[in-house]
Amino acid sequence: MVSFVVLGHKADASGDFKLDDICGGAGRLDILVRCVNSAFFLSHGIRKNNEAHLVLLGGKSAPKVVTFVGSEVRYLNPDERSTASLIRNALLKDPGAESTKSSPGVYASSKTFEKLLEELSAKHSFVLLAEDGEDVREAEIPENACFILGDNQDPSEEELALISKYPHSKISLGPLSLHADHCIVVLLNELDRRMPR
Amino acid sequence: MVSFVVLGHKADASGDFKLDDICGGAGRLDILVRCVNSAFFLSHGIRKNNEAHLVLLGGKSAPKVVTFVGSEVRYLNPDERSTASLIRNALLKDPGAESTKSSPGVYASSKTFEKLLEELSAKHSFVLLAEDGEDVREAEIPENACFILGDNQDPSEEELALISKYPHSKISLGPLSLHADHCIVVLLNELDRRMPR
Repeated sequence: MVSFVVLGHKADASGDFKLDDICGGAGRLDILVRCVNSAFFLSHGIRKNNEAHLVLLGGKSAPKVVTFVGSEVRYLNPDERSTASLIRNALLKDPGAESTKSSPGVYASSKTFEKLLEELSAKHSFVLLAEDGEDVREAEIPENACFILGDNQDPSEEELALISKYPHSKISLGPLSLHADHCIVVLLNELDRRMPR
Repeated sequence: MVSFVVLGHKADASGDFKLDDICGGAGRLDILVRCVNSAFFLSHGIRKNNEAHLVLLGGKSAPKVVTFVGSEVRYLNPDERSTASLIRNALLKDPGAESTKSSPGVYASSKTFEKLLEELSAKHSFVLLAEDGEDVREAEIPENACFILGDNQDPSEEELALISKYPHSKISLGPLSLHADHCIVVLLNELDRRMPR
């Protein structure tokens, strides 16, 4: 299983935002929903082996983690608005420490990034996307990779310190710095090419 | 300059649609706006050497072509809604045969796909994205490539016949069939790697 963690540094964790204003009022939630699109959509279906964990760090209700599970997810469409709606519904249930299902394949909790890493470390090897990392085309990518990305801000020093508690590798995707959702597309194309068929 | 042509087979050419309903009422305009995002956005700026031509073939006002020019474009944001708004504004000016500027770097006309190809052929070599094409990592890509993509439908037999009037190559992007906007991301990553720096 391939997993993605996307840090939404200002993404509103309360769910109290308008679907017409996911860039502004929702703290650049648009970036996170595009990452969901990239992580799951194929022309003719959903990438069932993938999971995406959105870490919402904005506002008084933060932190919250909203998780999409490819093998279970339903009602997921490629457009931003409908995915933002799934996220808002998950947040409005005011989830606690335990993951709560809000719709098939969509879960939310009040987990911290630290706690999320601790849980994921049991099954995954972390891979940080970083411009000084090894080129994705050359790099060894662990089978149960969990890729960690920032939104429009790189992971902070504190976040990097939390990641550094675990063994992890760093990879880069090319000569130019890309949006998080584009990074996921390039990554998955590389993985698709390596996958035995 | 790298150019993209995206065929929006049902995309509403009238501009008479709601920004809350770009997937349904606007005939999957969401696909076209995501292609604009992929064609232009970098983490720290716009790909100024790129152009994207959206061919809107849905409804009674069809055909219309809306063109985004990277070197001129302003007010372009990565989210779907704001790009759909730029397209709607361009269409609502009821453009005629000649390209009309609706905002900086955004133009519209009532050109047919056939006429668009004729104009582009003067400066570009056409490259069709097709699953039976040569792998993008191996293929020769012309310097002034114009990549032609369908939306959620492949180009029709008629459209392929129009393309076939011109010399063109065919490339594929990997083992799985991807959404049009994801195809553009993978393509540009390959071009970024080849570009002298």
